[in-house]
Amino acid sequence: MPQAAANDASEAGRKSQISRDDLLAAALRLLGPHRSVSSLGLREVAREADIAPNSFYRHFRDIDELAVALIELSGEALRKVVDQARVNVVSGHAVVRGSVEAFMSQVRSEDGLLQVLLREGTAGSDAFKRAVDRQLDFFEEELRVELVRLTEAADQPLHDPAVAAKAITRLIFAMGAHALDRPIEDDAELIHQMTQMVTMILLGSRHLRTRLG
Amino acid sequence: MPQAAANDASEAGRKSQISRDDLLAAALRLLGPHRSVSSLGLREVAREADIAPNSFYRHFRDIDELAVALIELSGEALRKVVDQARVNVVSGHAVVRGSVEAFMSQVRSEDGLLQVLLREGTAGSDAFKRAVDRQLDFFEEELRVELVRLTEAADQPLHDPAVAAKAITRLIFAMGAHALDRPIEDDAELIHQMTQMVTMILLGSRHLRTRLG
Repeated sequence: MPQAAANDASEAGRKSQISRDDLLAAALRLLGPHRSVSSLGLREVAREADIAPNSFYRHFRDIDELAVALIELSGEALRKVVDQARVNVVSGHAVVRGSVEAFMSQVRSEDGLLQVLLREGTAGSDAFKRAVDRQLDFFEEELRVELVRLTEAADQPLHDPAVAAKAITRLIFAMGAHALDRPIEDDAELIHQMTQMVTMILLGSRHLRTRLG
Repeated sequence: MPQAAANDASEAGRKSQISRDDLLAAALRLLGPHRSVSSLGLREVAREADIAPNSFYRHFRDIDELAVALIELSGEALRKVVDQARVNVVSGHAVVRGSVEAFMSQVRSEDGLLQVLLREGTAGSDAFKRAVDRQLDFFEEELRVELVRLTEAADQPLHDPAVAAKAITRLIFAMGAHALDRPIEDDAELIHQMTQMVTMILLGSRHLRTRLG
């Protein structure tokens, strides 16, 4: 793209090369824990990344495309939670409590990834909400597969593990969004509550199966 | 307020008298199911209510004060759900399913009240989020009292009914927000899922008590 390069060269003092990841990182820095991706402006992201606004278009069609990419990137935080849960299962660490702790450590992570998902849950454009729902659905499906595997191995199968996985996913996300608005000193209490909640859902799902035969 | 009346009289064709409720109703019409209260503008609310912008200040200090009033008004939708749940208990109708149905009928209600709460959950200013949290806390506390009363009457007390009430409240709200983005044809399936979820929490909470002695 010789034309774009020539444009950049005319913008004194600005970077002429920047990657897609650099732009996403600049957007994440701007968001912090409280702003929604829908409030991001193309010019402020370009300024934060120290490029000319025109260079933005080499990587994204518009600011909405960047926002959706940011939501997809946030899914990484969820995969870390699932990985940690698997480690807990192998190590014999308390699985529910350990997984809730892994989730909360992503909620508080300085990379701000999970915070993007937690903030976009109920507001924002349809395209953003669909992108968030896709990430929640991935997590829910991974959780369902693990629940079936673990509870069948322990000979304590669940009633409707898909509904149990959805309940846990949606509840943990709601509590995570709630945690973002609370001081960090409340985390211990929130982790205790969330551990109880997930345990109730799993235990209830198991007994519902017994009761329904 | 003779001065304000004189101002209004000079605005040809506009209403000279309007109540606080008229302004809230105008704001609700503008919001519809998808807009957040944080996107409301004072001038558009005044225009929708057919008053001069200056008349707005007779009722609210600014647009944020109207937004908080709107969130508080939305709590009415929750009280209707609690009332319906109590009717279900007395009539012997399936309590969990009946209450979930009452909640979903408020989610879909044309008055748009509950939708205000569901949309403001995770985005919006701190003042708005605190106002939403207050309404959720009222609901959670009413639910806790009912759960204790019902389960002790049936001699099936719950483990930590406060955590069970919080789990149900946060989960049902998350599912309600999710429902707003789904077509109405999905409601039957969502009501089935939410009924299962609440049943799992209640059953789990009861068995957690038995297990912990």
